[in-house]
Parts: sequence; structure tokens; C-alpha cells
Amino acid sequence: MYLGDEAWPDLETYFEEESLALVPVGSTEQHGPHLPEGTDHLIAEALAREAANRTGYLCTPTVNVGVSAHHRQFHGTMWVSPPVFRDYMESLARNLTYHGIDRVIFVNAHGGNVEPLREVGKRLHEDETAYTIEWMWDESIPELVREHFSVPGPHGGPKETAMIMHIANELVHEDRLTDARDGGLVEWGAGSARQFGARTFFDAIDNTENGVLGDQTDATPEKGEELFEAATEQLCNLSEWLAGQEYESLLPKEHV
Amino acid sequence: MYLGDEAWPDLETYFEEESLALVPVGSTEQHGPHLPEGTDHLIAEALAREAANRTGYLCTPTVNVGVSAHHRQFHGTMWVSPPVFRDYMESLARNLTYHGIDRVIFVNAHGGNVEPLREVGKRLHEDETAYTIEWMWDESIPELVREHFSVPGPHGGPKETAMIMHIANELVHEDRLTDARDGGLVEWGAGSARQFGARTFFDAIDNTENGVLGDQTDATPEKGEELFEAATEQLCNLSEWLAGQEYESLLPKEHV
Amino acid sequence: MYLGDEAWPDLETYFEEESLALVPVGSTEQHGPHLPEGTDHLIAEALAREAANRTGYLCTPTVNVGVSAHHRQFHGTMWVSPPVFRDYMESLARNLTYHGIDRVIFVNAHGGNVEPLREVGKRLHEDETAYTIEWMWDESIPELVREHFSVPGPHGGPKETAMIMHIANELVHEDRLTDARDGGLVEWGAGSARQFGARTFFDAIDNTENGVLGDQTDATPEKGEELFEAATEQLCNLSEWLAGQEYESLLPKEHV
Amino acid sequence: MYLGDEAWPDLETYFEEESLALVPVGSTEQHGPHLPEGTDHLIAEALAREAANRTGYLCTPTVNVGVSAHHRQFHGTMWVSPPVFRDYMESLARNLTYHGIDRVIFVNAHGGNVEPLREVGKRLHEDETAYTIEWMWDESIPELVREHFSVPGPHGGPKETAMIMHIANELVHEDRLTDARDGGLVEWGAGSARQFGARTFFDAIDNTENGVLGDQTDATPEKGEELFEAATEQLCNLSEWLAGQEYESLLPKEHV
Amino acid sequence: MYLGDEAWPDLETYFEEESLALVPVGSTEQHGPHLPEGTDHLIAEALAREAANRTGYLCTPTVNVGVSAHHRQFHGTMWVSPPVFRDYMESLARNLTYHGIDRVIFVNAHGGNVEPLREVGKRLHEDETAYTIEWMWDESIPELVREHFSVPGPHGGPKETAMIMHIANELVHEDRLTDARDGGLVEWGAGSARQFGARTFFDAIDNTENGVLGDQTDATPEKGEELFEAATEQLCNLSEWLAGQEYESLLPKEHV
Amino acid sequence: MYLGDEAWPDLETYFEEESLALVPVGSTEQHGPHLPEGTDHLIAEALAREAANRTGYLCTPTVNVGVSAHHRQFHGTMWVSPPVFRDYMESLARNLTYHGIDRVIFVNAHGGNVEPLREVGKRLHEDETAYTIEWMWDESIPELVREHFSVPGPHGGPKETAMIMHIANELVHEDRLTDARDGGLVEWGAGSARQFGARTFFDAIDNTENGVLGDQTDATPEKGEELFEAATEQLCNLSEWLAGQEYESLLPKEHV
Repeated sequence: MYLGDEAWPDLETYFEEESLALVPVGSTEQHGPHLPEGTDHLIAEALAREAANRTGYLCTPTVNVGVSAHHRQFHGTMWVSPPVFRDYMESLARNLTYHGIDRVIFVNAHGGNVEPLREVGKRLHEDETAYTIEWMWDESIPELVREHFSVPGPHGGPKETAMIMHIANELVHEDRLTDARDGGLVEWGAGSARQFGARTFFDAIDNTENGVLGDQTDATPEKGEELFEAATEQLCNLSEWLAGQEYESLLPKEHV
Repeated sequence: MYLGDEAWPDLETYFEEESLALVPVGSTEQHGPHLPEGTDHLIAEALAREAANRTGYLCTPTVNVGVSAHHRQFHGTMWVSPPVFRDYMESLARNLTYHGIDRVIFVNAHGGNVEPLREVGKRLHEDETAYTIEWMWDESIPELVREHFSVPGPHGGPKETAMIMHIANELVHEDRLTDARDGGLVEWGAGSARQFGARTFFDAIDNTENGVLGDQTDATPEKGEELFEAATEQLCNLSEWLAGQEYESLLPKEHV
Repeated sequence: MYLGDEAWPDLETYFEEESLALVPVGSTEQHGPHLPEGTDHLIAEALAREAANRTGYLCTPTVNVGVSAHHRQFHGTMWVSPPVFRDYMESLARNLTYHGIDRVIFVNAHGGNVEPLREVGKRLHEDETAYTIEWMWDESIPELVREHFSVPGPHGGPKETAMIMHIANELVHEDRLTDARDGGLVEWGAGSARQFGARTFFDAIDNTENGVLGDQTDATPEKGEELFEAATEQLCNLSEWLAGQEYESLLPKEHV
Repeated sequence: MYLGDEAWPDLETYFEEESLALVPVGSTEQHGPHLPEGTDHLIAEALAREAANRTGYLCTPTVNVGVSAHHRQFHGTMWVSPPVFRDYMESLARNLTYHGIDRVIFVNAHGGNVEPLREVGKRLHEDETAYTIEWMWDESIPELVREHFSVPGPHGGPKETAMIMHIANELVHEDRLTDARDGGLVEWGAGSARQFGARTFFDAIDNTENGVLGDQTDATPEKGEELFEAATEQLCNLSEWLAGQEYESLLPKEHV
Repeated sequence: MYLGDEAWPDLETYFEEESLALVPVGSTEQHGPHLPEGTDHLIAEALAREAANRTGYLCTPTVNVGVSAHHRQFHGTMWVSPPVFRDYMESLARNLTYHGIDRVIFVNAHGGNVEPLREVGKRLHEDETAYTIEWMWDESIPELVREHFSVPGPHGGPKETAMIMHIANELVHEDRLTDARDGGLVEWGAGSARQFGARTFFDAIDNTENGVLGDQTDATPEKGEELFEAATEQLCNLSEWLAGQEYESLLPKEHV
Repeated sequence: MYLGDEAWPDLETYFEEESLALVPVGSTEQHGPHLPEGTDHLIAEALAREAANRTGYLCTPTVNVGVSAHHRQFHGTMWVSPPVFRDYMESLARNLTYHGIDRVIFVNAHGGNVEPLREVGKRLHEDETAYTIEWMWDESIPELVREHFSVPGPHGGPKETAMIMHIANELVHEDRLTDARDGGLVEWGAGSARQFGARTFFDAIDNTENGVLGDQTDATPEKGEELFEAATEQLCNLSEWLAGQEYESLLPKEHV
């Protein structure tokens, strides 16, 4: 069920019977020369809407601009500061509880949003307003990702490329895949851009000239569809799991 | 040009040549029993995208949740607090200037956003960051609105109904138009809900049982198309006008 | 009853019996070459004190500096930023409730304060602290204003001129009335300083060289007295009306 | 020169020639059974206006509500929280500099404002916006105070009583002076309400049942006049001294 | 009992039986050419730990950096802004109450922290979270200080010198005591650096070239030990006194 | 060089020649039944001081209380909220730059501080104030950790146990090591406490009854010494590396 399409009387039954909401959260930021700036919010929205369709849970409209200052050196990247983003998401989620929502899944497709969204979740959890968790799509299917791609890459890589090929193929510049790989940084590991244990970069451009990390040349729409299906299934399962919990069990545990 | 669809290298020319951005801003809130909760953001997005297509100026993704606490008593209304909304919009607009944008049009379709967006505009104007103005679609075509509808109404009325009939007809419950009118408040004037000059209501529900103000029974898709065309033209003209100003002339005037 | 003049034991009965307070709020800002910078707070204070005298309700001291950055280009205009103003007014009003006040009228004489004061009212209403409304004197007597003046004007015009002639005639430079009119902008309408529906000015000086909007040459002390009497009556009526409401009826309505 | 009474063109010369402003700051709070709640702002305003009249320096309207939560248990005390007060005063003072003011005297008559105003002064000093100092009237004439009164008392005592007798005699309940003394705490010293070096009270009511500290029975209008004259002279001298400083000498010193 | 050294199960009994915590708060700032920058936090920590040892009350780790901007012109001074400091201390103290603490002593050794810590105490007192008081060591033994030193001095003087001689003698440059006195300001009184009643300095360097106020040449480790013993005793007494109060008696008094 | 021990004149040469500071940051929170609550700040302080001693770079006093709300259910855990922590660390680091510091290493020993400290680093990097990085000791020697311990565990495990055995052996309850393991959660992996890709816990107590994650029974002081030596060496190397960078190279890269 998509909140944005419903008239208010048609939501009454939902709020009487359910207390879960899916909130898609993305970013608008550079994704290399081959992918659109909307990549992250397109993915978040597509997954959240699909899972909502399949399960019947409520999906809200999408938050399109998140924490992306680290991509600002590339044309068109949009962002808000982390404190502002947290407060916006907190206010948005807190107000959903006015209608009876007491559990929220932030359906997230942008790494830079992960920690801010978790912090928002903690705020709402600590004061027992709602149980709000962050779900990052590719963290739900790590094995499938590794299986499909030689170098998954964390940004603008084959995971995202395949997903957009599936969701909005017309927005992928397929003729630029090789250039995208060659102009960026293919290998990115736990030790990259570190010195003696410290992370010594702040911005994407510190590591990659064209904004890409990974090798997207083995992305295909078919793989994208598989990822999409698998991630949707995970999200559906998560939704069912969360909806099925006793609310008491979701509250902070008592002091020992 | 729609920012969300472009890869970053394809935006370079735009930022070299232009410095204007259109930012659609809506709300997600009750619009009576006949219209979807997404009404405002659907309208803002449709107008901004169309004007961007026609003029070539840049349109960003949409901000879907705004200042709507006064509609909260109706199922599904989403909102953030005014300070949070202002800070989010300010951060978003301020950061666009990093790419060379120095004038922004908030393409707005929600009355509750008007004053907060103007305040954001003042912040950016006072410190000479950018010239940021708020444009509310129906304020650009007041005569056409009066001509078409017997009781335009400020919320959920025939203006918005006709627009959604044109933009997303499948989301309008046409069979509920009469009920929508009869269950709400038709006549809404400058003196409504006032006592001795003071506005004495806080929430929509103080004035209307079903969230509607106006009489939408004379809304048609054809009128919606006319409104859409007329408003789009106004927005295109505004964009051209603003893009054509000398930046110096947009800065705050000197102290006398 | 004026709070500032009373010793605390003499206020006990009032707080036992009543729960209404009038808080005058003005500005200190240019009002053209003929009127003093204190115009707005002088008017707000005079009306609030008089209504309090007549009705017996409590009037507090005046807040003299408000949201006036848009007049800053003229010598002497004082202002605080809107967020700071809102927080100050919110804290002031919230703390009045400690003594049993649960309804507040902001007696306002400055257009720039209207929206900020309404937002403060919403904050206190949403959390059920108090019912706090903004009352702008000239909005309570629109017909009388239109009747008396050919071009009322929103700022430094005949309304305010006549009021100050009545309240503090020695502060009006009568010999400058014609110059005030001729050096400013006489005609100011809904469409002034707009482009294609968007308000395209930020500061008073964008529209008027001497800070005046309107034609004050037909202002007289007698008209000022009439305005003052009429507005005071409105404020008295509003006070009685508000004091007479059941508190429950002033709280936010329940979710449908 | 009183800013509130002047039309803006008449302030031009002042801002060209001078850069000092006096800002009266008071409180609205209980002052015992014999004095009005406005005591502090009445004193601050009277002194600042008089000094401005005598010296020609600019005096602004008064800030009437300050940091007084510690008097809240007595009817009618008004207050804002310290962070809100500081931000309001900072914004007000910072914006004065737009007109060329670079030194400000907060003419203060309330102990609870002292530290917050000094902190505001530090903010403006550290970023080299303005040299802003707090002046508390009775700290300028300690010997005269000791000479005139057997037990000066810090709050509602003979200092303030005599001052209000001089400024607004009709607001003093002379018939309550003895009761005021007997119902409060007469002797208040450096060791009062302390335990082993720590201040162990938060509110006035922790120390005094009627809000009074001191013995006001020896207050007279004549003494009040003497205090007023002496304090005004101090303020005039301070104004001349401050106006005469080189601005460079008022800036923070360099790092060693 | 020192919290930092205990494993959590060993704290259970304490929180069952007691509700008091001592929180040492110092600064890291210049203390003249003869004393270490850690002077204030060394003193605060030593006193709080010792009192906790003797009484059995709980001492927490130390807050080492406080409100010291006024010493910034001297190498190495560290500081945070007052609003940040207050919020940090408030959050720290508020969260202690989660374990059952309802009374806190800020064991303070820095004058610049006094007012901010008292303000934090007021916040927690007003909302009835905890009774939190500030204790400044030298204010607990004023007579002993006066007895021992000819010119105690408020900063870098003999009080602090003797204390550090006792606590960490190796950190005192005894060979610089005479130079410290001669290069600073020896006599510092209530009227120092004032003009007509107003404090006209912002930074230590405005008054003293080497950061010292006072004459430390008569400081000895023996006197330091005496001060330490006496202040510790005061703190022990204060702790016992505070622990012995009924919690109800520590709450804000009712409105009259 | 340890800032807290130095008198200000003795720091002059350092600030002339160097621009690096090490700031130890820990937490005060439960670390299982066998380790002291001070574990994290003890480790951070010991490493930072040792590296400063060996390299000559400047080490500041320690920040002892950080982001630890997720351990609050265990007695004695202290914490401040993340926004407050970030602002405190930002203010502290920003003010160091007044003395010429332009690069800072947060020597961190607490996982909950990692993201907040990185966000602080971004703030200072974006506005080109300083290059501030977070260094977490155990992330600098992952191989050594894996080599020494069968189940390293992220909290209260053998890494931290061995370190405290080396740094402050008297604070380790060696007799509780087996109980610590058996009462906690030994195996903690990337998939622990997750549902379908989402992290579904908020607090330590959600996963472990006694606060321990890992198996500390193979911890020894000798291993602790090895870890300490290895980590110190990494920190020394990092300090030398960072001090050796051209400042220009540390600034944000230009827009493409």
C-alpha cells in the first residue's frame, strides 16, 4: 500500500490493523559517468514500493536527498548536513506515530545515510516512541552480490549498475561502463585509503577520479532483476518479522 | 533537464552556462476523501519537471514531506516541524550553490510551506548566498482559477482536484466528489474562523470534518489541463525572468 | 490590570479567577520620514493596556523588538532573527502558564511578527500547554480602515500615522506627510513586486525609497481616535470571548 | 537620544558621528509586597534614557523580560530561559552593528541578567563584531549604597525601593515596608544559604518567604534621587569613556 | 569509590544504597609560567577522589576541558564554548540519574566553570531530575586562604601554587615564582579593570602579561597540604550533608 | 609532550615548529564483570601519551565520557548524547587551531565514538579549519589481534582485557575471566543480531547478559604488552606521516 496514492479514509483500516511503515530513503549524488544521480533513491523507492505491494504494508513517499557531502566535488550532487538530515528523519518518523505506527523500516540505498539513520533509530528507541531500524538493501544479500560480480565495489559499481538496469534501464549509459571502470578505482578494500589504521580520506574524490569504486562491466539487467527479487524478498521477510513482534519486546530492556 | 536522471559528466555544461535550479516542494497530507495524500507533491513535481523540460533549466528531485501538522488529525498525514523543515530546505539550497547555482525557485504546491520557504529565502538572501524564491502555483493564475470554479476553496477544492485529474486521473475518486463537498466546508473566506480579527483555529479539522474546503464538483480533467498549461507557462516565464537578471541586482540593496 | 505595576501579592486574586494574559508585541523599525521607529510597539502597547484597563484582564510588559530585518537598510531599525524571536516568545508565553495562564493573546502591531507568532501559537497548542493566538490590530477593523483612507498602505501609511497622531501626536512629523507619500510607494496591491505569481522582493527598500507604502496625507488624530476605539473594542471582545471558552474546547481536536 | 522616538532620517547624523548604543535590560519579576514587578526594567529604562539625554548617545527601547526563573514561585514573575535570553540579546546587539554601532552598553538592573549578558558580550568580542559590556547600576555606586542604607539587601531592598520611589513613587506601597522587611530575609551575606562552600539554593523562595532580601524601611525618595543622580553620572562617564576609546584597543589582544 | 576503576557488578550495591555522585570538573589552561596547564583539573580530581575515598561516595572520571576562552592568548589553553560545555555537563549529569543518582556535586576548580555549572544545576533542578550543585574548592576555605597568603590572587596565585606543590610538586617550576609574580598583576581587587561600575575586560591578557594574578612567592607544599586537607574535609562534609537530605526537600518549592 | 604538565611558556617552541595534536578519547562504561569502567579511556590515554613521549608530538588531556548509551543498562555506564558529544569534540578541536594546530588525531578506544568523531572530522575538513582524523587502536593491528586470540570479540573481550592487564593490571578481575566469557556472548559475527540484513539491536544488553562479547580467557599481560607496543608504533607512524604532509594536500580537493 502506497500512502501517497491513498485518500485518507482509505487508510483507516490499515492504521487500525497494522503499525508498520516503510520509509524509502536515498540520495541524489554522482554515481559515476554511467549511472544517474538519482540511483540511490530510485533503488530505495523501487524496493520499498514492491515490498509494500507484496506484503500489504504501508510505504511512504521517498526522501530523496540525504548525507552526500563526500560526493560534492562531482557536478549535481545534492546533500544536507548530517544534523539536519537526522532531525528531518526523526521528525518525520516521530510524527508517523501519531497515526499509530510504532515500528518503521528506513529502506535505505545509500551508505552515507546508514549511521545517521541508526542514530535516529536510537533516539526513538530510547524514549520508547517507536522501533525504527535501518535496512540497507545490499547488506541483506551479500552472498548473491559476491556471487554475481568479480569486484562489487561500494559506489557506482556493478551492484548499483545492475539494479538500475533492471529498474530504469534507459538511465544507464551502457557505452560508458568500461570507461567508468578505467577512470575510477576498481579495487577497494578494508585497507584502502588508510594509514596505520586510520581512515585518511574524507571525500570520494580522494580515491577515485570519476566517482566510481568497483568494476561494473559485468552488470546486466538479468543480474539486476535477481538482486531486486532477492532484496525484495529480504525486505518482505523483514517486514513480516517486525510486524510480528510483540511491541513490548521491541522496547529497551530494563536496567539490570 | 532533470537532475535525478543525469550522470554527473552530463551536467557540466549546464553548470557552466546556467545558475538556476527549480526545486519542487510538496507535502504528503490528507486532501479529502477524493484526492490522494500525495496531491501537493504530485502537482509540484509535475509542474517543475514540465517547466524544466520546456525551458532547459534544471529541476531537482522533489521534497515530499513538508509543514502539515495542521492536517494531522486525518489518517496518513505526514509532516516535519517547521524549524526542521526550514533547516532541511536551507541546507539543501545552500549546498546547491557549491555547483554554481545562485538562484533557486522553490516550486511549491502547499500553503503550509509558503512562509517557511520564504524564511529560507531570506536567510540565503541576507548572507548573499543565493536568490531563492517561493512560487505557489495557484497564486500565479488567480484569474483563471476564479473563472473556472464557483468556489475554488483553499484545500482539496476544485483547483487541486482538476490538477490531479489531469496529472494522475486514476488517483481521483470521482464518485466521492459530492460527498467531499457536502462533508466539508464549502465557503471559506477571509473572515472564516476568526474572532474579532484574530485567527482562532489551528488545525484543518477545526473547520472541516472531512478535510475539504471548497466545492470540487465542477472540477474536470480539461480544466486541470488548462490550469496546468497556464501555471507551467507562468513558471517558465518566471524561470526565464530570473535567469535573465544580473546577479548584482538580486543582492540585498545597500544601507541608505 | 498591568502586570508591571503590580506587587506580587496583588496578583493572587487574578490568577485564581482568570487565566488570560495579553502580551503586547511590536517592533522598532523605520516607519518612514514622518513616524517614529517605535510606532509598532507604541500601538501594540497602547491597545493592550487600554483593553486590559477596560476588561480587567492582565496585560504584560511589551516586547519591543521583533522580526524586522526587511527594514534594516533604514537607519535605526532593530531586529532579531525569526528563530530567536520565536524561541523568545515561546519561552515567555510558556512560562506564563506556570502561574495558571492557559490562554494568551499576542497583541501585535507588526506584520513581520504575524507568522512567527502564529508558529509559536501552534507549538503551545500542539503540546496542549496553552491556547495562544496572534491578533493584529488593523486586521480587526478592515472596513473602518478602508472607509477612512483612500490608500491605507501596509507600512507607514495613514492607518499607523493616524494611530500615532492619537497616541503620541508629538512624535509625528506632520510637515513631512506629503514628502513621505511622494518619496515612497503609494499604490501597493496583491500583485505588487511579483513576477508570474512569485514574490520577488525581500526588503522594504526593494519597493520604496523612503520606507513608506501608502498615502498618509489624509491621516488625522480624529481618525486615529476612531481606529483606536474600534480596535480596542475588538480586542476587548476578543478577550471576553477567549476568556469565556471552555479550556477543553481550545485543545487540539482528537484524531478522526 | 531615544531611538524609539526618532524617524529614521533623523538618525543618520548620529550613526555617521557615533558608534555607541545604550540598551536597557531589565526583568519583570516579583520584588516583594511593596514594589512593582516592573521594578528592574523601570530602573534600567530610566537610567539609560536619562544618560542618553544628557550625553546625546543613543538609547534603544527596553528589553523587559529576562532571566528570572528563580523568582517564579511568586505570582506574576515572567522569564525566558537563559539560552533563549542570550540568543535574543546577541541577535539584537549583533544587528545594531549593521548601522555602524560597534560598542554597546547593556544598562542592566537585574542580577540574574549579569552573567548571561557578559556571555553575550564575549561572543561579540571574540568574533570582533562589537565591544559589548554589561553595566549594573548599583555596582557603580557601592559606597553611596552602603552609606545610605543599614541593610542594602540584594533584592527588593532599600536600593531598589528608593529608586522606584524616585522614578515612579505611585507604584511603591509605602504602607507595606515594615511587613516587607519582616516577612523576608533581612540579613543576606556571602555565606548565606551555603553549605561548606557550595551554594545550596536555587530559588529566591528558598531564602525568603515574601521574596524580599534586605531592610527597606530606611528608603526615601530623596535617597532614591541621590542614587539615581549618582548612577546616571556613572553611566554618562562610562558612555563617554567607551565612546572615546580607539576601536582597535577594544578588540581582543593578539596571541602572545 | 572511583567509578572508573570498578567493574559494573561491583557498583550494584552502591546504587542500591546511595544516590550521590561527585563529578570533578576542571580546565586545561595557562596558569602562569610556573604552573602546569592541567592545574585546575589536577586539583578537582585530587579533591574529589580523596573525598570519595574517605566517605565512600562515588567519584566519576574528570572533565578536563571547560570554559577557558578568556585564557586563549596563552599557548596551550584548551576550551569549549559555554553553550557546548553546559550541554555536555547537562547530558553527563542527566544520564547519571538513569542509575539512580539524584544528587550531584560538581567538584570544580576553575572560576570560568562556576556560572555554567550553576546553570546546568538549575536545568536539572527545575525539571526535578536531580539536585546538582557546584562546589568551588577555594570558596569553601576562604579564611584559611586569607590566613596563609598575603595576596591570594584569583589565578595562578599562591592558592593554586601551593595545591599543586602538594599534589604534583614535580610540575611546579619553583625557580620561576618570583618572575611569575613580577610579570603578572599582583593586586587584583573588586574594582580592578572596571570603569564606572562596568567590567571592562574580557580576557586574562587584558590584565596580566604572563597570565598570573596574585603573588605566589609564599606558597609552600606544607600550606598546600593544609589547604588540601581543609578543602577535602569541607567536601566530605558537603557530601554527607547532601546525602543526608530528604529528596523531597531538594525539589523546587511550590508556587506560593 | 603532554600538554597538561607543561607551563605555557614551555609550549611556545612546539607551536612554532609543529602543528599536530593527539587527543585521547575514551568512554566510561561497563566492560563486563572483569574489567573496569574506565577501560576505554585508560587505553586511549596510555597509547596517546606513549606515542607523544616517543615522537615528541603534543598529547592533550583525555576526554573520558563519550557515546555509550547502548551500555546504559549496566551499572555505572556514563554517556552524553551523540549531538552533544560531537559539539564538544568539535569545539575542543576547533579551538586548538587558535594555537596553530592544523591536524588532529583523535586517539580513540571506543567503538561508539568512531562515527561521531569522523563526523567531527568532516566538519573541520569541509570548512578547512583542520585535518582531523579518528584512529581506533585495534583497527591498526587487526592481524596481531587475530593471531593472539581465538575469539577477539568487540567488547570486553581479550583485546581489551590484555591491554588493561598491561596498563593497569590491578584493575582486572582475573578470577572472573571464565565467568565473564560464560555469562556473555562469545561468538559475535557480521550476521549476529541481524534480521534479513537489518541490524535489529540497539543496546549491548540485547545481545549479552553480562555485557561481554568475546572470549577473554586467553588474555595475558604479555599479549597486552605486545598489542600496546604494536599499536603505539602504529600511532607513532601515523603521527609522523600526518605531520609530514603538506597542509595543502590535506585540504578538500577542488570541484572537478
